[in-house]
Amino acid sequence: MSKQLGISTKKVDDLSEWYTQVVTKAELADYAPVKGFIILRPYGNSIWERIRDLLDRRLKEAGHSNAYFPLLIPEGYLQKEATHFKGFTPEVFWVTQSGDNTLSERLAVRPTSETIVYEAYSRWIRSWRDLPLLINLWNSVVRSEITTTRPFLRTSEFLWQEGHTVHATKEDADSEVMMILEFYRQLIEDEMSIPVLLGYKSEKEKFKGALYTTTLEAMMPDGKAIQMGTSHNLGQNFSKPFEIKYLGKDEEMHYAWTTSWGVSWRLISAIIMLHGDEKGLVVPPQVAPIQVVLVPIYFKEEQSEAITAKTKALADALRKAGVETHADFRDQYTPGWKFNEWELKGVPLRIEVGPRDVQNKQCVLVRRDNSQELTVKDEEVVDRVKSCLQEIQRNLFARAKKALEASIQQVSDYEKFRNALAERGGFVRACWCGMSDCEEVIQNDTGATIRTLPLKDEQPFSNCVRCGKPATKVAYFARSY
Amino acid sequence: MSKQLGISTKKVDDLSEWYTQVVTKAELADYAPVKGFIILRPYGNSIWERIRDLLDRRLKEAGHSNAYFPLLIPEGYLQKEATHFKGFTPEVFWVTQSGDNTLSERLAVRPTSETIVYEAYSRWIRSWRDLPLLINLWNSVVRSEITTTRPFLRTSEFLWQEGHTVHATKEDADSEVMMILEFYRQLIEDEMSIPVLLGYKSEKEKFKGALYTTTLEAMMPDGKAIQMGTSHNLGQNFSKPFEIKYLGKDEEMHYAWTTSWGVSWRLISAIIMLHGDEKGLVVPPQVAPIQVVLVPIYFKEEQSEAITAKTKALADALRKAGVETHADFRDQYTPGWKFNEWELKGVPLRIEVGPRDVQNKQCVLVRRDNSQELTVKDEEVVDRVKSCLQEIQRNLFARAKKALEASIQQVSDYEKFRNALAERGGFVRACWCGMSDCEEVIQNDTGATIRTLPLKDEQPFSNCVRCGKPATKVAYFARSY
Repeated sequence: MSKQLGISTKKVDDLSEWYTQVVTKAELADYAPVKGFIILRPYGNSIWERIRDLLDRRLKEAGHSNAYFPLLIPEGYLQKEATHFKGFTPEVFWVTQSGDNTLSERLAVRPTSETIVYEAYSRWIRSWRDLPLLINLWNSVVRSEITTTRPFLRTSEFLWQEGHTVHATKEDADSEVMMILEFYRQLIEDEMSIPVLLGYKSEKEKFKGALYTTTLEAMMPDGKAIQMGTSHNLGQNFSKPFEIKYLGKDEEMHYAWTTSWGVSWRLISAIIMLHGDEKGLVVPPQVAPIQVVLVPIYFKEEQSEAITAKTKALADALRKAGVETHADFRDQYTPGWKFNEWELKGVPLRIEVGPRDVQNKQCVLVRRDNSQELTVKDEEVVDRVKSCLQEIQRNLFARAKKALEASIQQVSDYEKFRNALAERGGFVRACWCGMSDCEEVIQNDTGATIRTLPLKDEQPFSNCVRCGKPATKVAYFARSY
Repeated sequence: MSKQLGISTKKVDDLSEWYTQVVTKAELADYAPVKGFIILRPYGNSIWERIRDLLDRRLKEAGHSNAYFPLLIPEGYLQKEATHFKGFTPEVFWVTQSGDNTLSERLAVRPTSETIVYEAYSRWIRSWRDLPLLINLWNSVVRSEITTTRPFLRTSEFLWQEGHTVHATKEDADSEVMMILEFYRQLIEDEMSIPVLLGYKSEKEKFKGALYTTTLEAMMPDGKAIQMGTSHNLGQNFSKPFEIKYLGKDEEMHYAWTTSWGVSWRLISAIIMLHGDEKGLVVPPQVAPIQVVLVPIYFKEEQSEAITAKTKALADALRKAGVETHADFRDQYTPGWKFNEWELKGVPLRIEVGPRDVQNKQCVLVRRDNSQELTVKDEEVVDRVKSCLQEIQRNLFARAKKALEASIQQVSDYEKFRNALAERGGFVRACWCGMSDCEEVIQNDTGATIRTLPLKDEQPFSNCVRCGKPATKVAYFARSY
């Protein structure tokens, strides 16, 4: 495609402009005609498919099934849980006409599916035999986004999964919430190489309608946090208005306990910002649609046959070994142009096959994460590629983990707290009295919110950083996307 | 779940009522609160996932990529291709409000994606290097359906895939259309065991905006045809209004050629109607989420341990051999209840493991398609299960093929033509003058349309069955869903 390859802005100089260029030039996504909407292009979609398949496998192994619920939800359904309705209604796109007819009731284009799911659950669940009910939905949701569009991060429509489960007891619902949180951690840390802080949301920050919310929070290079996923125990807050009841073994009727949880294509935005560099995207091997790209290099026509044959043989061997491999034989582009393109697209490993490599029965591996070159004997290629991909995966995580840890500043004084957020950003670890009022003042003063409260209570090391009263919690504050 | 198992209506007596019962009792789908919409339940969704994965693999091997395009499309885009707009606009759900704001332009909830896809293609395609562009979308589309809802068959929202490709020449587009038609045939005939007639649509019946449409038509037990999928060559009808142009190797600008093609969850409705019987659903093994269900049977507690162990061992061996296996250890249901439930859900093969089977190192296989029982030695189970599944697959196809062939009546006389359709339905093979007027009169008289014109022209054997003028085509007429 005739396009300007290469990113013209430095990541450190202007993260926002750099980000937009990476998204569009690496062909992850494109802007759509309606403000706030984007097109997920094939390369971006294939990363999303990898993420989907990794999570989907874990969910199914743990007994979850996928389903599909309707896109259009009657307004009356959204109104059944009042806090929930208030939270979503300013963002809803409303269908009011069908063909030439005006509808008698407005239909919401799915902003989230709790209400329509629960209406069905109340009909499907009769007794303890029907529990737990473990259903997940892969779909898109639409919520009007009035600030500036940022692909994958702030869009009016996004792809995600939403899990909706029903349990007999609070304890069962708790276990589900924590199991899902661990699945998300595995996906994000082990497969996307993105370290996160795990914990609870404060009352103020929890999901509207939840008993409690757990979260995974990552730190971006500009000092702002990203909420990567959330897993909620909804208590009986939805089961009561929606009448989700079951006949227990005790022959009595009980309200059930529900959970919901989700991750979205926002995960991709963290991959871009955290791992990317001046050359463009860097995709962690486990979620890379192409893990290895082979580029044949020859200058004279008579070299072409041997080099092509060798490249094909290497590609076959790698594919047979389960490595996602692409061999780039396009003759309308030079090797140098191809190097740039695949670096821009963040393919973790490149293999160059030139005339000397044919002679010496070897090839050259080039790592995307650190530009290291390795000359490898043909018989060792498969093993070396596999170990190299593992090293890249580990290296990306280690680098990001170091950055995350370096970002955490601990303070016990409000002046230092404000400076810490103003100067460097990142996570600020501080003690808190537990009152929403203090949280709100802090947000007004600094733009920061409590991103998370540790899963296991940590011992306060000072009084509340804002009001000076005795602290009940250690909290991690940050500004966020 | 406490529900009425078993279908209370005979398929031959009332196909429509039988169909609804199978869909809801086998838990494939449920009705949603908004008229015309359904909920795809986990079991139905897992069949759709099997269909999706089978087709998706073929598409990717042939170089197609998936993408995701926005759900909401500006009205102005739909209007760009006039015939297309006229065809879809009466069915469109319109978004007119976002939160409390009235939108300046109405947004269509995606009825199909041609227009929004082509707007992007016109920006992405510059030269011959960018062709062919082969993109497929898995999504849902929404079209107001005013007649009675029939799950999978007539619903206002349905899941489908829509392929949208761009080519340099008409010949390339022709090849794509035919390759996709063959992929669909493989999916429908080889994997869903549903025989089809392949061919072209008439001018009157083709996709609005297409140069020509190819189709796959199946015959249902009530004598009505179902259109299973279509693959269109759109010529330059969309590339011109949307300005999809490329710089050729000749250094000139050319309008490109486009194709589109799709299959939907309607495929599931044909599985239900064609293969189902008095006990419920029969799922062809290749698309069955559960191919084999194992049911342990014991009457005394002391038998339970040995039988459970044996059932688990068999299930493990089958899973290791790649068979989709479920072992039903629920102790709140009797074996007889389980037999009924899995028959209702159409699992192709049941394995019973009882006390005598432990003793004799054997088990009993029961085929869903013909109720045949086979006693099989333990060491042969895996091989016998595999061959049995193949036989079921073949048997379902052979049975349906026989029914399809028996349904075809050949006539050369209009009186007989009308009687044939009124009495038995099915396909009527007849000669046709090629004029849309005659088609329309036939439709008004009989309710039948030309379902397809053979891919290779067949020699007319009479004059036009309606007007008596010289015939130019042999056509297959039928009433249809």
